Amino acid sequence: MKAAVYYGPNKVEIADVPEPDPMPGTVKVKVGFNGICGTDLHEFYAGPIFVPTEPHPLTGRQLPLTMGHEFSGTITEVGTGVTGYGPGDRVAIEPIYRCGNCAPCRAGTYNICQQIGFHGLMSDGGMAEYTVVPADMLHRLPDNVSLELGALVEPMSVAYHAATLGEVGPLHTAVIFGAGPIGIGLWFALRGKGLDDVFVVEPSPTRRAAIEALGARTLDPTATDVSAFIADRTDGRGADAAYDAAGVAPAIAAATACVGARRPTISVAIYEKPLATPLLSLVMNESRIQGSLCYTSADFEAVIDLMAQGLYDPTGWVTPIAIDDVIDEGFEALHAGKKMKVLVDPSAGAS
Amino acid sequence: MKAAVYYGPNKVEIADVPEPDPMPGTVKVKVGFNGICGTDLHEFYAGPIFVPTEPHPLTGRQLPLTMGHEFSGTITEVGTGVTGYGPGDRVAIEPIYRCGNCAPCRAGTYNICQQIGFHGLMSDGGMAEYTVVPADMLHRLPDNVSLELGALVEPMSVAYHAATLGEVGPLHTAVIFGAGPIGIGLWFALRGKGLDDVFVVEPSPTRRAAIEALGARTLDPTATDVSAFIADRTDGRGADAAYDAAGVAPAIAAATACVGARRPTISVAIYEKPLATPLLSLVMNESRIQGSLCYTSADFEAVIDLMAQGLYDPTGWVTPIAIDDVIDEGFEALHAGKKMKVLVDPSAGAS
Repeated sequence: MKAAVYYGPNKVEIADVPEPDPMPGTVKVKVGFNGICGTDLHEFYAGPIFVPTEPHPLTGRQLPLTMGHEFSGTITEVGTGVTGYGPGDRVAIEPIYRCGNCAPCRAGTYNICQQIGFHGLMSDGGMAEYTVVPADMLHRLPDNVSLELGALVEPMSVAYHAATLGEVGPLHTAVIFGAGPIGIGLWFALRGKGLDDVFVVEPSPTRRAAIEALGARTLDPTATDVSAFIADRTDGRGADAAYDAAGVAPAIAAATACVGARRPTISVAIYEKPLATPLLSLVMNESRIQGSLCYTSADFEAVIDLMAQGLYDPTGWVTPIAIDDVIDEGFEALHAGKKMKVLVDPSAGAS
Repeated sequence: MKAAVYYGPNKVEIADVPEPDPMPGTVKVKVGFNGICGTDLHEFYAGPIFVPTEPHPLTGRQLPLTMGHEFSGTITEVGTGVTGYGPGDRVAIEPIYRCGNCAPCRAGTYNICQQIGFHGLMSDGGMAEYTVVPADMLHRLPDNVSLELGALVEPMSVAYHAATLGEVGPLHTAVIFGAGPIGIGLWFALRGKGLDDVFVVEPSPTRRAAIEALGARTLDPTATDVSAFIADRTDGRGADAAYDAAGVAPAIAAATACVGARRPTISVAIYEKPLATPLLSLVMNESRIQGSLCYTSADFEAVIDLMAQGLYDPTGWVTPIAIDDVIDEGFEALHAGKKMKVLVDPSAGAS
């Protein structure tokens, strides 16, 4: 079968690899779509970062590995001991391997497991016609949720998890910095939580246009003083939550300037280096910066439920491609900013 | 009467000013001791910062003003309408003027009142033989709490408030960065909350020695890898709370590196500029940086109660001086690092 195999920096090959067989407790999935994530780009251009170069403690695997941790598919075969799922079931995969034993795992926050592994980074993932996953990674997709949307459940759960850490409700005002896929996911998640007063701050006209087409209100930080705008909008109270999905110093500065007293700025970005952060803003109104990482199963279930209600729309920001095009139309197009979100179809022929 | 009057940068004069009379709802206090705060130093060397140059909305006052917002004293006269206090009562003063009307005031968190004022920054304060304060600023001192300790209630309440935001209890491990007066106050507060496992990180041998003499365990960050030490100490769990009372980038980097999953780093410093902050550390274990500002009356009451229990000791870090020496022995000695905490006695003669 075809698979996009990662060998190291700048080396991903579309290889012909053996189809995997399900072990006990696992299922074999025919992959529908697999998204390319920012993490995958980092691995391709500057890795290996997360991909292990010696056996991972939870999976025993190291590179070369088939990439892909954001995917949906249809079960084709079920290993011994698996109940509740069978061939033909359509699923999204929550790709976390956890130790089950560290303090975060014992507290139920296995998204910050001290040994965490990901299917598609620490084992052969979803950029292949088939992959085999433990049954506890499965989430059933309702009939009205497409496999295309199903492949978006993972990144949308990253955003939903962060949205929840903002501790917001229907009458609150929220500000999102960055309108990439996670910023878009935050907007969907906050809408799903009943918020009407959400503003997306994004300097790129293209990205503003994309999220405006979905119904979002945007602010151009090069033209608008965001904190003055939000202060005016909230009678000086400030935003109930700010979200940094941009990962740059101006976003952190504006987020901490516009968030209200005792309220959170949620950091949901991969910061390559320390950023100049106005900590005095946190002191003066006792606000906070709260980190957010990945998701747990509750986030997957919430996103799938909102998708079934029709709240997620891939129009204008998601592009399916064939696996043979993964370098040119995937990594390079994303790296150049020509596409926002790419879903690889491992079974489609080359364009 | 004698008063230390602030006219602007580098200009504080020991002046002869009229004794104030109590208005309705206020009391006249003969000041016992008045501490010099880092904020006072900023006003002296780089102000006016907080001292208003036009009438403050809550006090109507502007410079020149008598300095001093950390003080204790004895009531000598009571204005009409004041009940529960009388001449001879020994008190610590909680020097906050609040609007009572903004969202934080309505939520009870008047320490972050949007119009906040301080007695001794926005009105004539405690570096004088007498001062007049609203009765709602008074906290009674038990007989066994000296006026010297009473003048420390304000800065110790800053630290106690921050300690509480760390959400810690007796079995927890905490790390304090910086052994200045607020770091010392954090150590007393955490001890008062029942914690045994507290480490104070301080590069200065003099400051380490001072807090060690009080019973604290210290770490020299130039000789010890603090996050490795704490990880080892906590079986990899990390500190339950970290406190930045140093306000410098290496402290924030070490604090966020040693704090545990979903736990807080409390910022209780005046940051003159944005600091390089490793936000990725917050993301990777979903920890947070929480700002802490001042105190409310509950903090004053808790500190006074712990003082009555004998938990606060001024030995080795607090120096009383006469008001005539406030420049040389006060501002300049503190600025040069020759003293840690200075209490001005407005009634003592010059040395």
